[in-house]
Amino acid sequence: MPTIDDNVRRLRALMREKGVDACLVGTADPHNSEYLAPYYKARAWLSGFTGSAGTAVVTADRALLWADGRYYIQAEKELAGTPFQLMKQGAPGVPSHWTWLAEHLKDGQAVAADGRLLPEADARDQEERLGARGISLVTDLDLVGPLWEDRPPLPSGKIFHHDLRYTGRRARDKIGDVRAKMAEDKADYALYVGLDDIAWLMNFRGSDVPNNAVAMAFALISRNRALLFIDPVKVDGAMQDLFAGEGIELRPYDALIQELGKLAEGVLVTNTRRTGRALIKALPEEVKVLDRQDYPYELKARLNEVERQSQLRAGLRDSLAVTRYLYFIKRQAVKEGLNEYQAAKRLADLRRQSEAFIIESFPSISAYGPNAAMMHYQATAEKCSPLAGRSFYLIDCGAQSFDGTTDITRTVSLGPLTEEERRDYTMTLKSHIALASQPFLKGTCGVALDAIARSTMWRYGLDYKCGTGHGFGFVLGVHEGPQRLSNNPVAGRYAFAEHMVITIEPGVYREGRHGIRLENDYLVLPVNQTIAVHEGKADFEEKEVTLNDDGDCFLHFQSLTYVPFDRAAILPDLLSPDELNWLNDYHQAVRQALAPHLSGDERTFLLEETEAL
Amino acid sequence: MPTIDDNVRRLRALMREKGVDACLVGTADPHNSEYLAPYYKARAWLSGFTGSAGTAVVTADRALLWADGRYYIQAEKELAGTPFQLMKQGAPGVPSHWTWLAEHLKDGQAVAADGRLLPEADARDQEERLGARGISLVTDLDLVGPLWEDRPPLPSGKIFHHDLRYTGRRARDKIGDVRAKMAEDKADYALYVGLDDIAWLMNFRGSDVPNNAVAMAFALISRNRALLFIDPVKVDGAMQDLFAGEGIELRPYDALIQELGKLAEGVLVTNTRRTGRALIKALPEEVKVLDRQDYPYELKARLNEVERQSQLRAGLRDSLAVTRYLYFIKRQAVKEGLNEYQAAKRLADLRRQSEAFIIESFPSISAYGPNAAMMHYQATAEKCSPLAGRSFYLIDCGAQSFDGTTDITRTVSLGPLTEEERRDYTMTLKSHIALASQPFLKGTCGVALDAIARSTMWRYGLDYKCGTGHGFGFVLGVHEGPQRLSNNPVAGRYAFAEHMVITIEPGVYREGRHGIRLENDYLVLPVNQTIAVHEGKADFEEKEVTLNDDGDCFLHFQSLTYVPFDRAAILPDLLSPDELNWLNDYHQAVRQALAPHLSGDERTFLLEETEAL
Repeated sequence: MPTIDDNVRRLRALMREKGVDACLVGTADPHNSEYLAPYYKARAWLSGFTGSAGTAVVTADRALLWADGRYYIQAEKELAGTPFQLMKQGAPGVPSHWTWLAEHLKDGQAVAADGRLLPEADARDQEERLGARGISLVTDLDLVGPLWEDRPPLPSGKIFHHDLRYTGRRARDKIGDVRAKMAEDKADYALYVGLDDIAWLMNFRGSDVPNNAVAMAFALISRNRALLFIDPVKVDGAMQDLFAGEGIELRPYDALIQELGKLAEGVLVTNTRRTGRALIKALPEEVKVLDRQDYPYELKARLNEVERQSQLRAGLRDSLAVTRYLYFIKRQAVKEGLNEYQAAKRLADLRRQSEAFIIESFPSISAYGPNAAMMHYQATAEKCSPLAGRSFYLIDCGAQSFDGTTDITRTVSLGPLTEEERRDYTMTLKSHIALASQPFLKGTCGVALDAIARSTMWRYGLDYKCGTGHGFGFVLGVHEGPQRLSNNPVAGRYAFAEHMVITIEPGVYREGRHGIRLENDYLVLPVNQTIAVHEGKADFEEKEVTLNDDGDCFLHFQSLTYVPFDRAAILPDLLSPDELNWLNDYHQAVRQALAPHLSGDERTFLLEETEAL
Repeated sequence: MPTIDDNVRRLRALMREKGVDACLVGTADPHNSEYLAPYYKARAWLSGFTGSAGTAVVTADRALLWADGRYYIQAEKELAGTPFQLMKQGAPGVPSHWTWLAEHLKDGQAVAADGRLLPEADARDQEERLGARGISLVTDLDLVGPLWEDRPPLPSGKIFHHDLRYTGRRARDKIGDVRAKMAEDKADYALYVGLDDIAWLMNFRGSDVPNNAVAMAFALISRNRALLFIDPVKVDGAMQDLFAGEGIELRPYDALIQELGKLAEGVLVTNTRRTGRALIKALPEEVKVLDRQDYPYELKARLNEVERQSQLRAGLRDSLAVTRYLYFIKRQAVKEGLNEYQAAKRLADLRRQSEAFIIESFPSISAYGPNAAMMHYQATAEKCSPLAGRSFYLIDCGAQSFDGTTDITRTVSLGPLTEEERRDYTMTLKSHIALASQPFLKGTCGVALDAIARSTMWRYGLDYKCGTGHGFGFVLGVHEGPQRLSNNPVAGRYAFAEHMVITIEPGVYREGRHGIRLENDYLVLPVNQTIAVHEGKADFEEKEVTLNDDGDCFLHFQSLTYVPFDRAAILPDLLSPDELNWLNDYHQAVRQALAPHLSGDERTFLLEETEAL
């Protein structure tokens, strides 16, 4: 088997042959995906570094690998004994890989980056920057493909129809919505590369990317045609008929470049921050590019009525599974002498009891004690901690079901807690309640809402080094924008509107001691709409609300998650009367939602945990 | 005297002669100023519309005037009987003036805009947009100058040295700081057009723009020269000597274009969102432009130690004047039968008692009852309301003194209040306290901090249609960035750091009823620094603060304003214990700050108003 040394040597030989002086291999697929299929893990193949983000740069005499703070330790370990040197991304004095290239290449030299994987806007920006120093950017070379001998195949799982009873709107009509927006923007074509956008638009789901119900595809919409580029092996006869009925024509996955080259004069709208340079270069000169956020990306961010009902059902069902899991963790797991890895298996079993369950929406984080202070900790069979009868256990988990997506975190005590542990838990809860109970003006942006949760922590000299929450897709990806609760004014610039979904998940992380995170999924509703829960059933309800003089529209967060918080971990004296009311109301709703579905010890557990404080 | 009709007719003739099809006349000077000298009020001259913002567009058959929501009524009135038609900027379906031009001009047509007044970045953006439709942008024509016969002269007030005991740093050293940043950015020249930046950098102040202590000037810094372009009539002999001592060379105001044309090859750094296109066009081809926020704009946003001490003195002195004014308003003005306009004169008298006073930092807003609901209300001798013994009176005022700038608003009851009035006052106070008492992580941006004040209002279904606060200059302009408390993620993107100053001024505005605003000036300090006030003296103090595990740096807002809030207007039951503590501590500091400087009835008034609640 070729070594990393071999890879680098052969790459340098190919670079010399093609006349390029540097080669950049990042973490990307042609769909700007967060999670990559193995076929696209070229950076891991080349360098040996397997983290979820990073960039390799190879020149005639240097081999560099950029990794961020999450991966400094892992990268050092994996790169040891290879020609690669770690560049600590984000550390003081360490330039970004593009800056490094601009500063280290000479006038007249060339850097190669695969134009199928490099978004057009990035290519344009870097081309300008490198060009100012006489360095050229070559994007039409594939330097990895010819060298990667045991490359995994592209995934080939079947796709399935996402039924109208979940989606509430036919693909034909969604495509019509896209065409209406194209008409507004005077565009003749719309090109989509985002797997979530395409699956949503055409009402199918797939299994090409772990934890994401999507399939490798492109879509090209014109005024009277809708083309889906996908490997035919994934589409069975029934699905072909369904597509035909929606006016969707099928093309092979790799036929897009050729199709783009044949387009007649007109305007093509696409998001050049996602669409690869190679696709843009394939367009005839008479086709002008209009740069816009992808319409489906924004359209799907607001759930329709059927999707909202679906998400509510999915949220209730998964809340039941998680609550049963908490009973198991708090009452049985320690006694049974289980470790983090073994415990988490029970959660998967509980979820699989539902026929609606497809896959976990991400690998569960099952973390005991100090392990939970690492935000992205993953217990494995080989490396994990046993549970003990004290301190905290954290479970961050979610499900993709036919009717919706969830992402829930609870932190629970497994025995006696220190004063610091209880204070930190209570702070996290206060921070969660601060935002969950906050009515806000329609159009408020994520960075403003983020501050409402975070400011509660600040009063106690605490802060968490991550966002307060993220949007999530409807049976798609568990991280989906544009809405986002971030303290960065660019990432958090998007305005919130009714019917978006978002997680709220503040936390306290103390290295070497404990990590606490409390996460619910929320649906944004106008203040006059709410969800009422009664005897195991939940439904939307209207109530009378008087507008203020200016006719402002106010929104609020309605929980889709019904899982108890840990009473034993709360210091009630630190809660204000308003916070206490919120908590007691929430626990009352949890009891109403779940009690009819539980019996015996599990039911007793629920009733105890949801007792008013 | 020529009429608006004449202006438009003559402009059209000149347009035909010069071969342009549209002419744009905005609200601008070559310095990107907020307030214009009369010489630059070309849009008002052309159209007759006198508001502080707006844009006129004239074509062969249309004359249009864009004005924003504040001015719809005034513009309708002023444009009546002229050829101009009002375009309601911001109203649904009304395109911006640039969009209108792009949509209404034909392929091959040309629009003229004065390149001396149009920032380069705007010119570039619009050129690209218009160019895509075959329309050209002409920026080297002066169509207004030849037609405007009774144009006012450029202002010619003397400038004065801003003494080292206020500024704390010599001009020579500040210019050195700029050169250090130029070296970092590998720039050979730095060009400044902002009047506040230039006055700060070279330690002078002027009187060319009402309420702003600035003078018309440009600055050009190279590695070994510092040129100030200013009308020589403004600079007396002593000032000339001072400039010479700081290594600053003087040039006539209108000599800049010629000087730019003579620059040797190199890189010129400037902010193309402020610097006019004409200046950029004047550069030889060998001079490359590097686009950056102006260094002085960011350098001056953080006050040095001497400036902080100065601002504290100015704040204390102006607090005394405002508090004495509140005594007069609450105890005498109604009895004396005064109106809003007459009352405000007393405030000016009180301020003039100090030798440090230069000018008001903006025209005071003196508003009784429903008038205060109009955020930019201006009482005049001809049009104003009498004060009566009920409801609220609002005073929003500020001073430019040699040692600092202030901007203070108080709303006070003149007699019995309704329940709604007291509730709205208390909400405004709660909102003010929420942010004023909030510790926050260094680097938090304005849009996040804005939400902390605003969210308090949202809980009661209220919102204010303006930012929560703004930065202000040090004896310069009363609105100065980059720091800003805005609910817009772009305007509020700037990160807060220690030693910035900011106003906090939430409000409740009920059309036809009342307007309430409570505004203090704050200095941002690390949480371990504070200002202690004792027996009429105030000074900075350190205290012990433990950092959290992550070593985060937390900041807080320290008030520079010491003026009582109106006890009679507060509903104490709506205040939380923490809010009540903040208020009582603040009133204790106000009493300590002012009592030694007051006697008789004024002193009794202060003691009553600052009694603990």
